Amino acid sequence: MSVRVKVNRNVLEMEYAVRGPIPKRAAELRDQGMRTIPCNIGNPQALGQQPISYYREVLALLEVPNRIQREKKLRDLYRSSAALRERLEEKDLVSPYVLDVASEFLAQIGTGMGAYTDSNGPRFIREAVAHFIDARDGADGGGGVKSDPNSIFLTNGASEAAKYLIEMLVADRNDGIMIPIPQYPLYSAAIRKVGGVQVNYYPDEEAGWALDRSILDESFKQAGSRGVTVKAIVVINPANPTGAILSEESAREVVDFAQEHDLAIIADEVYQENLYGAEFVSFARLVGDRPIPLFSLHSTSKGFYGECGHRGGYVEMRNPPLIEDTDQSFGDVLLKQASVSLCSNTAGQALTFLMVSPPEEHSEPYEQFIEERTAVLKDLYEKGTMIREAFKQMDDMECFGRTGAMYLFPRLGKLPPETTDFDYCMSLLESTGICTVNGSGFGQREGTSHLRVAFLPPQEMLKEVMPKWIDFHNEYVNRG
Amino acid sequence: MSVRVKVNRNVLEMEYAVRGPIPKRAAELRDQGMRTIPCNIGNPQALGQQPISYYREVLALLEVPNRIQREKKLRDLYRSSAALRERLEEKDLVSPYVLDVASEFLAQIGTGMGAYTDSNGPRFIREAVAHFIDARDGADGGGGVKSDPNSIFLTNGASEAAKYLIEMLVADRNDGIMIPIPQYPLYSAAIRKVGGVQVNYYPDEEAGWALDRSILDESFKQAGSRGVTVKAIVVINPANPTGAILSEESAREVVDFAQEHDLAIIADEVYQENLYGAEFVSFARLVGDRPIPLFSLHSTSKGFYGECGHRGGYVEMRNPPLIEDTDQSFGDVLLKQASVSLCSNTAGQALTFLMVSPPEEHSEPYEQFIEERTAVLKDLYEKGTMIREAFKQMDDMECFGRTGAMYLFPRLGKLPPETTDFDYCMSLLESTGICTVNGSGFGQREGTSHLRVAFLPPQEMLKEVMPKWIDFHNEYVNRG
Repeated sequence: MSVRVKVNRNVLEMEYAVRGPIPKRAAELRDQGMRTIPCNIGNPQALGQQPISYYREVLALLEVPNRIQREKKLRDLYRSSAALRERLEEKDLVSPYVLDVASEFLAQIGTGMGAYTDSNGPRFIREAVAHFIDARDGADGGGGVKSDPNSIFLTNGASEAAKYLIEMLVADRNDGIMIPIPQYPLYSAAIRKVGGVQVNYYPDEEAGWALDRSILDESFKQAGSRGVTVKAIVVINPANPTGAILSEESAREVVDFAQEHDLAIIADEVYQENLYGAEFVSFARLVGDRPIPLFSLHSTSKGFYGECGHRGGYVEMRNPPLIEDTDQSFGDVLLKQASVSLCSNTAGQALTFLMVSPPEEHSEPYEQFIEERTAVLKDLYEKGTMIREAFKQMDDMECFGRTGAMYLFPRLGKLPPETTDFDYCMSLLESTGICTVNGSGFGQREGTSHLRVAFLPPQEMLKEVMPKWIDFHNEYVNRG
Repeated sequence: MSVRVKVNRNVLEMEYAVRGPIPKRAAELRDQGMRTIPCNIGNPQALGQQPISYYREVLALLEVPNRIQREKKLRDLYRSSAALRERLEEKDLVSPYVLDVASEFLAQIGTGMGAYTDSNGPRFIREAVAHFIDARDGADGGGGVKSDPNSIFLTNGASEAAKYLIEMLVADRNDGIMIPIPQYPLYSAAIRKVGGVQVNYYPDEEAGWALDRSILDESFKQAGSRGVTVKAIVVINPANPTGAILSEESAREVVDFAQEHDLAIIADEVYQENLYGAEFVSFARLVGDRPIPLFSLHSTSKGFYGECGHRGGYVEMRNPPLIEDTDQSFGDVLLKQASVSLCSNTAGQALTFLMVSPPEEHSEPYEQFIEERTAVLKDLYEKGTMIREAFKQMDDMECFGRTGAMYLFPRLGKLPPETTDFDYCMSLLESTGICTVNGSGFGQREGTSHLRVAFLPPQEMLKEVMPKWIDFHNEYVNRG
């Protein structure tokens, strides 16, 4: 006889499709021996992407600091011992540069990887993040507003930061957060969980998911007419789930809009390296010296690093608002909130440090680092292109916007009567093993149907399964 | 001109003294060049405790899997090359056992350390946790209820699990959670954050913080008379902040009480290795086959491992309740909640695996592992004893209960007029650099004053600073 309990409705009702019924069914099929192809989630190393060697070599030394001395001895010995040279290759040795980076990191962190750090992360890592942001945005030459290490918080991935921000900003049940539709369901779930109002805005799909003022104003006005106080606007760029890359023009519209209405911007910029030739314009650069609260999120999980499992990330604040009726700043409360969990994990912190501090040009690891980076990004782009090409052979399957992030979000122009994109994705899974997520899991304009596919499976696998998907599609949509 | 924003009152008002004003002041003093002694937090490696070598050696290999081959080659070479034997010691090599454990872990996890895992953690780690629990509680011989890997969730430390549970259990503003006073402020903060009611119960300080039914009933009755629906009772054993170890008798009282009132038990058992000769009785064993929902928390941060920075931990559920008005189980919703953050960090997961799977007897790393474990626990106990002894030289300073966890929570029997334990701790910090936390940060019976000290500084340091504390104390409390 089990006890029955009433639980928090908000928690009960929140949804998270990326790990919802379709991936659950995929797990069942896998347990039954079927080969499944997990395109439901941006998890590159689960599909064979190799970690960047440089990152991991440093990380391993941080865990066993006394190895640094041993590796130095080994290098010395290698020079003098023919026996050693016979059995080990030079590349099996750890380069002096890696040894120095690890030593320097350990000297800076002071208490090793096993101690709690400050709740916002060690200061030297936050300084490295600030340098990275300034270099990226051209603010290091004096041409912009510099990033402040005290306004940077290291977090377990970017998800944790998004949850903290939404928990703080939703002060009562009429407070709303504007989110794009489609959106990454972390945002709808976090808003639901704190009992706030999800305020949808609709990027223009056929214009490559572009934004303009009329789209944003319409959404804001509708929220106002329902009595909702909009507190912030979330922008995901490059976008998840659409993969679209926001033009500078679209991004400027968001900034102007936020300023006019005193909104904070939550800029989810975790795909900022997944551009495939396009230009990334950070919200920090566009906000410049205007007094708009901006929270920019980044993560070690995406880009060319794909270190999802290590849960590294940060949020950078600009113009943090003051808190009504108190003498506290937004940063004070964010820090208190983070401190209840003590700190983010140190391996994720170390990877965040490495992400923002690539090996210097001409250093020993540099060439291999660039090769690995280039290979990953080239491979991702080729895979995205292969899948887009296959869509052209599928009836009424259209995919808008350039290829960015790690996702495509094609529109199913045609479905059999009484079926939904959920049914399509479930059948696709059952027929081919390809696991995608239905568009309704991300939200979509009423009357449209989509799916999200993460373009991560190895090219060999795609060559084999895409024809099956094409056959499945043309058979499925022409049923009934 | 800064924007002003209204934020979530619950977040604004929650308090977390462990990283509150006193530690903040300590950081300022440190920046000004003063030596401070951080006894405010259970963060052993920040005070020089060394990590367990075995754990770190495995962890380093998991990050760079191709090193496993290299280490094997090195071992072979070491045997044949006198030059190598001259420069390296045998202990600089990685033992075959460690290489095997790392290989096996990588084979099991399948996708390395860089991929998201299942949201509850990889199954093989949950199985290892279940075996550990069964062995600890004597359920592996068929003498108890076995732990179910499907009811185990790996989390970022134990704090994350506590927050998830409280977020779920507080369904409306009249829902209450019983917590001991004094308590670890994670619990009060989590309850405050979700807008629930903190229901205090008061272990009997002078009886070594023991519990009996009358204490629990009194608290329950009072809550009822205020219209509060109590959902769960939190027990921390060994306790934080008091360090007290619950007798089997006290723990049985809690179990009977929970059953009678259909309450869930949240058993924070993260200090289960910090016993110093006392016996640990798990709530899982006491609950046995009775249908009482139990959530037991454990972590890699404490014990003899002290891997705080890596944020590893788990929660084990027993008799998870069904959720009112749905066909969902508590575990389904917990899993959904965890899935929004994708998964806990893999380094923390690996340490959790290692924590529950110590090296086998007679394996190469075994002896060193036992030596390190014994040395850490012996040192902790000696430090706790040194501080307790010093209390005897302080006027009206009494400390109840046996020594457990990593904390002492002495009662300040005497304070100058108009001063509080907060003032005492702040002055202690300013005068001696010793950073403690005032008892009011954890809650305490009205009219009493305490402080919590984590007994972690090196013995040499304690020998030097304890006399200063004694002098400070006897001067301070006899003022005015």
